[in-house]
Amino acid sequence: MSLLVVGSVAFDKIETPFGKTDKILGGAGTYVGLAASLFTDDIKLVSVVGGDFPASYLKLFTDRHIDIEGIKVVPDGKTFFWEGRYHTNMNVRDTLTTDLNVLAGFDPVLPDSYLNSRYLMLGNLTPSIQRKVIGQLPHRPALICMDTMNFWMDTAMDDLLDVIGMVDILAINDEEARQLSGEYSLVKAAAKIMKMGPRFLIVKKGEHGAILFSENEVFYAPALLLENVVDPTGAGDTFAGGFMGYVSKADDTSFETLKRALVYGTVAASFTVGNFGTQSLLEINSQDIEARREVFMKMIRFSD
Amino acid sequence: MSLLVVGSVAFDKIETPFGKTDKILGGAGTYVGLAASLFTDDIKLVSVVGGDFPASYLKLFTDRHIDIEGIKVVPDGKTFFWEGRYHTNMNVRDTLTTDLNVLAGFDPVLPDSYLNSRYLMLGNLTPSIQRKVIGQLPHRPALICMDTMNFWMDTAMDDLLDVIGMVDILAINDEEARQLSGEYSLVKAAAKIMKMGPRFLIVKKGEHGAILFSENEVFYAPALLLENVVDPTGAGDTFAGGFMGYVSKADDTSFETLKRALVYGTVAASFTVGNFGTQSLLEINSQDIEARREVFMKMIRFSD
Repeated sequence: MSLLVVGSVAFDKIETPFGKTDKILGGAGTYVGLAASLFTDDIKLVSVVGGDFPASYLKLFTDRHIDIEGIKVVPDGKTFFWEGRYHTNMNVRDTLTTDLNVLAGFDPVLPDSYLNSRYLMLGNLTPSIQRKVIGQLPHRPALICMDTMNFWMDTAMDDLLDVIGMVDILAINDEEARQLSGEYSLVKAAAKIMKMGPRFLIVKKGEHGAILFSENEVFYAPALLLENVVDPTGAGDTFAGGFMGYVSKADDTSFETLKRALVYGTVAASFTVGNFGTQSLLEINSQDIEARREVFMKMIRFSD
Repeated sequence: MSLLVVGSVAFDKIETPFGKTDKILGGAGTYVGLAASLFTDDIKLVSVVGGDFPASYLKLFTDRHIDIEGIKVVPDGKTFFWEGRYHTNMNVRDTLTTDLNVLAGFDPVLPDSYLNSRYLMLGNLTPSIQRKVIGQLPHRPALICMDTMNFWMDTAMDDLLDVIGMVDILAINDEEARQLSGEYSLVKAAAKIMKMGPRFLIVKKGEHGAILFSENEVFYAPALLLENVVDPTGAGDTFAGGFMGYVSKADDTSFETLKRALVYGTVAASFTVGNFGTQSLLEINSQDIEARREVFMKMIRFSD
């Protein structure tokens, strides 16, 4: 079933201990869309880019059957640009440049063909814009998942809490879950956050895995163990894209399906970090996903 | 089958964000022995204490059928004392005092009744002392597991590598595995460390779980998700004690048995961190272990 993805489509410039890039394709919407396309071909992307955005990048989406009618092109504007440098410990990074450019005026208007999307992934964006997307849908999606970041907790908490109250799943990292709830224990944090509205919470812990909470259940999946991690950029968005891509293909929102989706998200993210930017995501197909999922299954397999 | 445990028996004084203690029972040998006693009643402890060590503490061991013939008492000596303070982020702690006292002259001599032990757990100690214990055993144990720390990598690397070459399992934390191998990737670190001798490597990641590596297999178990973590002291030693306690009860060293043991070690450690010092360990029994193991199993259960 159709998956509506809202998120930035951007230029990134990245430096890690393993090298640096020029301006390359980036953005939450990009990673979510490309990852989801490994699972389903019914994806509708909403974003905004400037006149400097190359047609060849747009073709990367359409080649993967991602509908880009919802990507607004502002001819005389410039595309959102982010530049960052990772430390030797790649869990830490410095943002060197954030040029919002056309993203500053982003006012998403959903094309008619997008209005009946059954699944919705809200990438990290200004909470009021996330809300605006939900508000345009005539029918509530079967499942809404949203990402956010601590910046919005610091600057737009009221709006953020309002949107959190409208979604089914909040997918954030451990630090964000702790800040949002004021609780260090992730068990306590999850209980508090689910009281804010969402039925599910996903805590993304990077190299330490991910945890799916519902009111009465919990599933903790470790991350793949990798020989080479080159660039963590986009890992969380790839995770979200793999997760929602699988959910929308399965068209089911049971806890068991969400567990399977969590594993697919984990597997997808393990590819992204293996090379710079979207490079790995663009090289793999669903067979690669299944093969690495087998490795993952072996690593967690446990019989009493 | 009999489990020989070598490790410090000590006084600890601990401060965490949740409170502080007076001088209480501590030491690697203590945690390993008490945790192992939840699985087997054939445990022989080797250590040294001073004349200031209370008989009531020794009775805690004998009440749990831990043989203490190998605990040497130095009447005019003082027991090893460690004092530490944990930060708000309890993954970080400052050592305020380390008084080696009688541990400085520790020269373990195994009682005759200890010589045929089938399993051996070498707690974190000077590598040359760990080697001395192995050297006294007339038959090689079915499995030798050792712990160590970065201090010995900095000060006694040759001795340390010598002992590592004599054991079956090295059980260390992620930071130590990285320092020992010079590799950041735990996959690469494991491969290098197993080339040093051990057939297995356990990487303890605290709240992020533990990983068991063999040459061809890997098992990654997350940690329990806890509402309250009060004092991390002894968690790693409790893990090792639960692990080796289960292995010696099962009397089997297959990868599947070691996986089960890893889960039991994880479960045992989850109790220790819930209260100061050995308090939780002294309150629980094997039914508590099994009940919490069920919670753990539910948290990791995944079917294709």
